[in-house]
Amino acid sequence: MTNKVRVILFGVGAIGSLIAKFVLEKKGLEVVGAVDVAKDKAGKDLGEVLEVGKPLGVTVTDDPDALFSKVKADIVIHATTSYLKDVYPQIAKCVKAGINVVSTCEELSYPYYKHPELANEIDELAKKHGVTVLGAGINPGYLMDTLPITLTGPCQEVKTIKVTRMMDSSKRRIPYQKKIGTGLSPEEFKRMIEEKRITGHVGLIESIAMIADALGWELEEIQELPPEPVIAEEEIVTSHTTVKTGQVAGLKSVAHGIKEAKNVITLEFVSHAALKEEYDAVSIEGVPNIYEKIEGGVHGDIGTVATIINAIPKVINANPGLVTMKDLPLPSATPEDMRIYINWRES
Amino acid sequence: MTNKVRVILFGVGAIGSLIAKFVLEKKGLEVVGAVDVAKDKAGKDLGEVLEVGKPLGVTVTDDPDALFSKVKADIVIHATTSYLKDVYPQIAKCVKAGINVVSTCEELSYPYYKHPELANEIDELAKKHGVTVLGAGINPGYLMDTLPITLTGPCQEVKTIKVTRMMDSSKRRIPYQKKIGTGLSPEEFKRMIEEKRITGHVGLIESIAMIADALGWELEEIQELPPEPVIAEEEIVTSHTTVKTGQVAGLKSVAHGIKEAKNVITLEFVSHAALKEEYDAVSIEGVPNIYEKIEGGVHGDIGTVATIINAIPKVINANPGLVTMKDLPLPSATPEDMRIYINWRES
Repeated sequence: MTNKVRVILFGVGAIGSLIAKFVLEKKGLEVVGAVDVAKDKAGKDLGEVLEVGKPLGVTVTDDPDALFSKVKADIVIHATTSYLKDVYPQIAKCVKAGINVVSTCEELSYPYYKHPELANEIDELAKKHGVTVLGAGINPGYLMDTLPITLTGPCQEVKTIKVTRMMDSSKRRIPYQKKIGTGLSPEEFKRMIEEKRITGHVGLIESIAMIADALGWELEEIQELPPEPVIAEEEIVTSHTTVKTGQVAGLKSVAHGIKEAKNVITLEFVSHAALKEEYDAVSIEGVPNIYEKIEGGVHGDIGTVATIINAIPKVINANPGLVTMKDLPLPSATPEDMRIYINWRES
Repeated sequence: MTNKVRVILFGVGAIGSLIAKFVLEKKGLEVVGAVDVAKDKAGKDLGEVLEVGKPLGVTVTDDPDALFSKVKADIVIHATTSYLKDVYPQIAKCVKAGINVVSTCEELSYPYYKHPELANEIDELAKKHGVTVLGAGINPGYLMDTLPITLTGPCQEVKTIKVTRMMDSSKRRIPYQKKIGTGLSPEEFKRMIEEKRITGHVGLIESIAMIADALGWELEEIQELPPEPVIAEEEIVTSHTTVKTGQVAGLKSVAHGIKEAKNVITLEFVSHAALKEEYDAVSIEGVPNIYEKIEGGVHGDIGTVATIINAIPKVINANPGLVTMKDLPLPSATPEDMRIYINWRES
């Protein structure tokens, strides 16, 4: 068997830590470095930061340049923020160090629509350095783009696509519950939306653009409506807070892809603590119609960790450049030791 | 815009004709040749064979060698029989003529398990001639392999997979209804199964092998049980026949993939005329569990026509060799003019 896949973790915050713990369970992967700029993490052993009860012999650094100059790796798992402008310099460092990247950055999942120039820069840089860059995650990256695209595979014609994600936010991490405004008054929610302190879900635009690209649709416009609060009709106790009747239980975000003045793609993202039934549904109007539903939905954090890890062999095998989920071979779960899938390129 | 994609139809029987008619509707495709060995087709204009009400200027030939020696094409759409041994010489001719192939041959969808030597021969031949060969269709090729594999993408772990296809056979073509024994007595059904005159669905073994390969599972065995008759409990009138109470309404086929003495993959194919609810369902036991269902199912013929046509740009773009659906980029519907997707290789 070949050597293990050498992994650098870039960002060990909320989601980065979950991914890191799963990396540690995987036989074929080896953590050779960790980056985080947070003052309470840099300088500590990764085991302490992850609270796994033992040192791991990898010190978290806030200096990626120094790390990349002395440690070789096969892939960076990047998990810092949602916005491409913020992560671009971080990704560029990894690429210039000759390391493949899989990132949770929502805007990287399909950056060609909002950030075509940055997308081209990443693509050119990755090609120049012979590495592959992918933005992945459960959403964007899977439930509202990859899966609906796959479901159009048996269609002779597609007229419209609607994707609905109904999530019970009370099952999610506290920072996530805060991010969607749980426990605010409707007035606070409105103000925080206006001040962009609550952004709602990031990724609807990317998902719509990826679907349109896959189907060869030229959209006139992608329209994202402001998130609307979902108001609690009775008191709800969550791990984050107690939501009183009349307070905000979560939010609903809707976006449309418009072609020939018609909403041809509609994504509806609903996440709140009062939800009775979780599901993910795709409804395709076409030849044939397709009505698909995942009962109980897919848990966001579990799914993001999985989609990131499962992408590793496909990213390493892919041709150099910026890729999206629709360009790679079918998503699939990886076995405990994923090295069987990897076709190492000559270096 | 580039020239149209030049298509040769190899086999214009029941399913080949449906595909052919859809090819004629697609702007970016052009039929430049048609092969069929049936005495009532060879020598006739394709328009007459397809009964489209006008001549198409393409004469159906029973001599593929003569056709390939004078007509250049980009892809052969091959639709003759289910068995790789029978189609191998036909596929080899196309490949030697330097033409990509997408085929409805069930055993070609994942030939490495039952026919590893033929699979390797096709792969080597295709690489030698710089073309790509794919077996596709709704099932095998999508519902019981491609889609379940895709659904493992957000899984950290997969313990078992069960796929169920519940089809109302009365909505299908008459030859299909005959193929599954509709209207036979239970004794006739049993005899015809023993004499292999009813084969049931071809593809369960291929689908199981493809799933196992995608997940990196080494199966001890793939076990296909003999098809069982589904008996009509009341009289059913179909386009093919009237099924009396006590006669065969259709069949049920089950196959298992076995790992560590456990059924880790179970495919259940149920097709009969007495069915009340059609659906396609995937149930994954893992982390997380995934319970997915397509209400109403996907119509077999519509889906096969679509998956074959939708595969064309991906097959033309792929690296040379034998590929399966799991190796190609995500399946997706194609727009009216699919040429926007094609990256023509230098010839």
